[in-house]
Amino acid sequence: MTNPITVLVPDRLGEKMLSQVAGITVVRYDVDREPDDEQQAAEVVVLGLPAVDAAARFHHGLPNLCLVQTLNAGFDQWIGRLPDGVSLSNARGAHGRACAEWVAAVLLAHARELHSFVASQQRESWDQRLVGSLEGARVAVLGAGDLGTCVQAVLEPFGCEVTLVARTARSGVRAMDAFLPTRGEFDIIVVVLPLTDDTRRIIDAEFLAGMGDAAVLVNAGRGPLVDNDAIIAATAGGRIHALLDVTDPEPLPAGHPLWSAANVTITPHVSGATPGIWERAWRVAAAQIEAYVAGERPPNQVQLS
Amino acid sequence: MTNPITVLVPDRLGEKMLSQVAGITVVRYDVDREPDDEQQAAEVVVLGLPAVDAAARFHHGLPNLCLVQTLNAGFDQWIGRLPDGVSLSNARGAHGRACAEWVAAVLLAHARELHSFVASQQRESWDQRLVGSLEGARVAVLGAGDLGTCVQAVLEPFGCEVTLVARTARSGVRAMDAFLPTRGEFDIIVVVLPLTDDTRRIIDAEFLAGMGDAAVLVNAGRGPLVDNDAIIAATAGGRIHALLDVTDPEPLPAGHPLWSAANVTITPHVSGATPGIWERAWRVAAAQIEAYVAGERPPNQVQLS
Repeated sequence: MTNPITVLVPDRLGEKMLSQVAGITVVRYDVDREPDDEQQAAEVVVLGLPAVDAAARFHHGLPNLCLVQTLNAGFDQWIGRLPDGVSLSNARGAHGRACAEWVAAVLLAHARELHSFVASQQRESWDQRLVGSLEGARVAVLGAGDLGTCVQAVLEPFGCEVTLVARTARSGVRAMDAFLPTRGEFDIIVVVLPLTDDTRRIIDAEFLAGMGDAAVLVNAGRGPLVDNDAIIAATAGGRIHALLDVTDPEPLPAGHPLWSAANVTITPHVSGATPGIWERAWRVAAAQIEAYVAGERPPNQVQLS
Repeated sequence: MTNPITVLVPDRLGEKMLSQVAGITVVRYDVDREPDDEQQAAEVVVLGLPAVDAAARFHHGLPNLCLVQTLNAGFDQWIGRLPDGVSLSNARGAHGRACAEWVAAVLLAHARELHSFVASQQRESWDQRLVGSLEGARVAVLGAGDLGTCVQAVLEPFGCEVTLVARTARSGVRAMDAFLPTRGEFDIIVVVLPLTDDTRRIIDAEFLAGMGDAAVLVNAGRGPLVDNDAIIAATAGGRIHALLDVTDPEPLPAGHPLWSAANVTITPHVSGATPGIWERAWRVAAAQIEAYVAGERPPNQVQLS
């Protein structure tokens, strides 16, 4: 029997959620303290909320470290920040359904003009009229992984025609290069791409200029996928609406022009922030660690380049 | 060959939408004018927006009238108002998807606290926190017809456990009598019942007292299904939230206490008011009239008692 593998976890929930994983010793750590002897044996560290600088320092004090496991879906902040030979695995699969629910919520609220009816109620005014609908809407979802497929699954029952878009074409997924010239045909474009050097500011003035009239842009990926100035300019006249759960920077400071841009709706990065979020993330993390312990490549290992 | 059947329609869209129905002559009418000779031949009248008193007077001037066809789903206003021997058929099937979309929209906006984030945006405040979700919510839908099954179809992809409830049990539908003692187990109760003598004020103080803590009541049926005073009392402390698209009376006048009741959200009867609403309704009406012309019972004929 081999020695158990030391896995460092940041909190009590992690201790509990990994307690059933065979072949490991779970040890608590504090990212702001030097690793002690027991912690230095760690081959795996699970990250809580991103504290990239502190975590990067901590990792370099772990000579046996092989795998960093995150509890979220994004991993852009780790590019170039891990020690050589250390791989990173994310919580893909934990957040897709919650994120898709947020996308549906803001799209439905927009189509049905719910915020306007809240204002009507405050005025005690019965403002009956025709409103919009998602029925028959042509929707492009940029990003065809867990998040994108979850978005597709909740929008199609409303009668949306959903097209998934990714870097390269595959069955049921259109290639980005083929999609771009057709983007003016879509009523709604949902961005759930990972942030990489290829995708940073992919939603720029040129992209927005090619969107159709009255189209809606939704960003549930990462703030820097979108050029703030371009969004503010494109939405000002009402030709395009933007529904954003992520911004650049976060938190968005008071006084930032995005807050008060016309036809821009902002929520404070809450698309995945629903009850059970951490339990779901730890279940995915446990599966990655089980694969690692079995000598396999964790299914969620990501390419940091 | 038999003579064509005269069908009266209130507007140009009706003329157009019935122009392909064989065996009928389509004639425009104005509910506020006495029927002329051509109109008096009518066996079928299609009603536009409800103008019950004027329409009831008009109908009594049509000696050959057999069928009144409506363009909406509710028919409570016609109980006891049709000439003897005249039957009524509604537009069941035209409005279910739009109505279900409204139900999903207000439930998602409530769970995800979207109105609160609009206020945060106005304050330019990044109020990140955990919010609610429909995932795993136990939902009872009172009314298991077109509207109820459409509500089920859009809520289940969000992970809701949906129970349909109707007067009598059948496959996949629980009986109201069996449901009532269990209503405290549901997170969400959606009312899409028709309004009849049996269902008027079915949501009263006793019903609400038996709902679970933090439960949400949704009314997308008819306003008088719900007792206003009971709703205002039950929601005041925040134990129950109510999301209402219909009220009693409609329009709800300024100054009515329901407008300003805490934890009550009101939209002005817009659940079905989406693009294409009248085209959808006329397509259903055309199918009813085709059945009538063929000597069959219109599929949507309703029991007015």
